[in-house]
Amino acid sequence: MTQNSEKHWSEEISALLRAREGFALADVDPDSTPGYGGDKDTAAEDLAAGAGDLDELQERLYAQSRGDGPAASVLLLLQAMDTAGKGGVIRHVVGSVDPQGVMLTAFKKPTAEELAHDFLWRVERRAPQPGFIGVFDRSQYEDVLIGKVRSLASADEIERRYGAINDFEKRVTDAGTRIVKVMLHISPDEQRERLMERLDRPDKHWKYNPGDIDERVRWPQYMDAYQTVFERTSTENAPWFVVPANRKWYARLAVQHLLLGALREIDPQWPAATFDVAVEKARLAAT
Amino acid sequence: MTQNSEKHWSEEISALLRAREGFALADVDPDSTPGYGGDKDTAAEDLAAGAGDLDELQERLYAQSRGDGPAASVLLLLQAMDTAGKGGVIRHVVGSVDPQGVMLTAFKKPTAEELAHDFLWRVERRAPQPGFIGVFDRSQYEDVLIGKVRSLASADEIERRYGAINDFEKRVTDAGTRIVKVMLHISPDEQRERLMERLDRPDKHWKYNPGDIDERVRWPQYMDAYQTVFERTSTENAPWFVVPANRKWYARLAVQHLLLGALREIDPQWPAATFDVAVEKARLAAT
Repeated sequence: MTQNSEKHWSEEISALLRAREGFALADVDPDSTPGYGGDKDTAAEDLAAGAGDLDELQERLYAQSRGDGPAASVLLLLQAMDTAGKGGVIRHVVGSVDPQGVMLTAFKKPTAEELAHDFLWRVERRAPQPGFIGVFDRSQYEDVLIGKVRSLASADEIERRYGAINDFEKRVTDAGTRIVKVMLHISPDEQRERLMERLDRPDKHWKYNPGDIDERVRWPQYMDAYQTVFERTSTENAPWFVVPANRKWYARLAVQHLLLGALREIDPQWPAATFDVAVEKARLAAT
Repeated sequence: MTQNSEKHWSEEISALLRAREGFALADVDPDSTPGYGGDKDTAAEDLAAGAGDLDELQERLYAQSRGDGPAASVLLLLQAMDTAGKGGVIRHVVGSVDPQGVMLTAFKKPTAEELAHDFLWRVERRAPQPGFIGVFDRSQYEDVLIGKVRSLASADEIERRYGAINDFEKRVTDAGTRIVKVMLHISPDEQRERLMERLDRPDKHWKYNPGDIDERVRWPQYMDAYQTVFERTSTENAPWFVVPANRKWYARLAVQHLLLGALREIDPQWPAATFDVAVEKARLAAT
């Protein structure tokens, strides 16, 4: 297995970015590039090298699931304030993987049918099957983020949800899914610049929504809600990683690296043939 | 809009490959490269150039669907004998598109739930939403291909299905979906080589199934079933394209080109802002 994408990383990124006990979101500098010794140019090269590694690991993961091996999968869960770069991560990191091995879900405002069920109902339905890399663009955490900031549910209900999420994630990881939870962290100033760019460019207007500013003015409440999320749901089996995201090139590379780490821990293997190779060769040659 | 990917094509590919009245599958040489004046090397360059065009067109298609514009989408439907290269097309052509704009479905052997419904039930559920490029890896045509060759349904039922498919596709195209139906056409000798390679390589064993040979020996019946499919379902609104596929580089480039053609005919436009840009800039600046 190639490890080209390991260049320029001084430390184990999963340790550096993990939200452990005592973690404070306020201490994270969104401009920083923890653990990475390169720059924007080397990052482009490293991202391309990492795409090759990801490609092979994903194919092995898928192949392993077709055989008698363990039923492993990966779930990359992305949360962030608007413009923080979820879309770019999906396009440039997830987009380098064979689409046949990816199960992507963008969770929007819940539909009437979804609201008629428990908040985890729609999430459970999109948990990745063995062999797949599942990707959640937003997730169950919306229900304790906007849900809390906007008081869309009672305080008791929000409280219940942290435990329900932990139980759910424990079950899913026990069943063979490795969960990588990522918050892309930008600064309010960076967001203002990115929103302004959307307003400046007619080909970006479709990405802008006046409601984005209504959320933006609640920035401190959102950061508080995220802080509580990290305290309550960054568990041993499903930890949170906070990725500084003012520099897009760093955020993409870091998420790719976390994904690679999860796959390398699974260490998927080509499955053994479930048929007699010599017999099949003879059958084929006879046709 | 760039048109870099137009190089080396001497004629309109959609006209060249289309299964029109009088079309005979037996007349198609799987080794041929209709309309393309380049070779394997230029094809790699052209595929990369086409990926750029596809990228922009897909983003426009998605953006248009978010505005007040027409609710357009594209459906690429792939059918082929085993090893003909559906997977490679998905990986190398579809894989170059932002995954956020793609809705991929691999239709397998129907489940008990699917069999309890009409054969089009599972297909309808996966028709692409506006703004998306839907991709079917196998499709409703399995029900008149393997369904016919293996007598999984009565002759009357098979007969009914051609009409049901045409009605369904007419409705879907009337509602704004452009359907591109592609059969990747290889020769039996080429398939033998490709299956043998899977048997030769331990990292490819998982792709091999002894049942592949059971289908292979029915090659003539499958070709007959395909011929009937083209005669009965290559309609004005949802035509079939038969792509010679012994040369993988040609098949991938040709499918990309057909996809580009469908998107260019839609000619999606960036939607106008649904808000007052100056007002929003002032709101943003005040935060």
